[in-house]
Amino acid sequence: MYYKHAVFEVEVKYRVPGHDVIKEKLKALNAKFLEHTEETDIYFNSPIRDFAKTDEALRVRIYGDGTVVLTYKGPRIGGIGKTREELSVTVNDLESLLEILRRLDFKEVARVIKRRDIYNYENFTIYIDIVEGLGNFVEVETMVNDRELINKATEEVLQLGDKLGLRRDWIERKTYLELVLEKNSMNKP
Amino acid sequence: MYYKHAVFEVEVKYRVPGHDVIKEKLKALNAKFLEHTEETDIYFNSPIRDFAKTDEALRVRIYGDGTVVLTYKGPRIGGIGKTREELSVTVNDLESLLEILRRLDFKEVARVIKRRDIYNYENFTIYIDIVEGLGNFVEVETMVNDRELINKATEEVLQLGDKLGLRRDWIERKTYLELVLEKNSMNKP
Repeated sequence: MYYKHAVFEVEVKYRVPGHDVIKEKLKALNAKFLEHTEETDIYFNSPIRDFAKTDEALRVRIYGDGTVVLTYKGPRIGGIGKTREELSVTVNDLESLLEILRRLDFKEVARVIKRRDIYNYENFTIYIDIVEGLGNFVEVETMVNDRELINKATEEVLQLGDKLGLRRDWIERKTYLELVLEKNSMNKP
Repeated sequence: MYYKHAVFEVEVKYRVPGHDVIKEKLKALNAKFLEHTEETDIYFNSPIRDFAKTDEALRVRIYGDGTVVLTYKGPRIGGIGKTREELSVTVNDLESLLEILRRLDFKEVARVIKRRDIYNYENFTIYIDIVEGLGNFVEVETMVNDRELINKATEEVLQLGDKLGLRRDWIERKTYLELVLEKNSMNKP
């Protein structure tokens, strides 16, 4: 029952000095440019446990075209990557959704705003991200529907990262949410 | 901010012996038949408070055509009626929505399954309901977007009820959820 709808996102994030090199490499590999998006993510915390501690996330994502998606992310289960189970639904009304979450005592904790160019290469999705207040990142991602396949998929993601000139010491295991929360707490007087 | 999206459902429910008389009255009034629907409602309770006590409700409704709507209902604020504030979003994936709610520790408490014929008359909606395990009901409803208008609207709903041959001593202030829960608890050994 539980696994029926499970999808595991196998993903490695790199903090990069800039995006010129990777864009050339993607071109050389004949990766397909899919789209440019602007995404605003609003993260909520649970009233009964601290998602920062349980490593879960509840996110409302607003895409540039106005599409609204509610996502629950389970704890990271991979090693070097940030594999999680994801459950998502598309919702027709942002304001009502936010108000429902507030009434159910979920508290907004942070907003992450990013512009991203999305590429496809073989089984992988590559995100070239500029995150407001955080800087430049690249995420390399694939999806598997079986927990057993995570390690193999992570290795493939890392090998593609190598090919794209992404240094392994650039790997950032923290989520954008964690990085934004860190930054916010450092900026407090 | 809060009231911007508020809609108050002003509604009176009657437990009726049958539906023949009201259908004739609706015909005589030239009320417009809108549609026949079959609705399955799945109700959830909060992990942090008992919605049965706070008089709130969190409902996933599945319409006969497959449409899925998530609704939060605030406490009843009217006297004789069952006026509440409602917040709803349409969602594209039932199974993912149910799984997200479970992961956020909402517990399923009951299912209410009903067949309803829906009529429109002036500003009112009339629901002719057969509820699985509960019997025959009629609901007369209107919507207002301002708390100040509730009493006036309730009076109008009651007057229409009179016109439709609905006896005031048939008024049932309990929700279908409460009636189903009552029945379930009575059936326990």
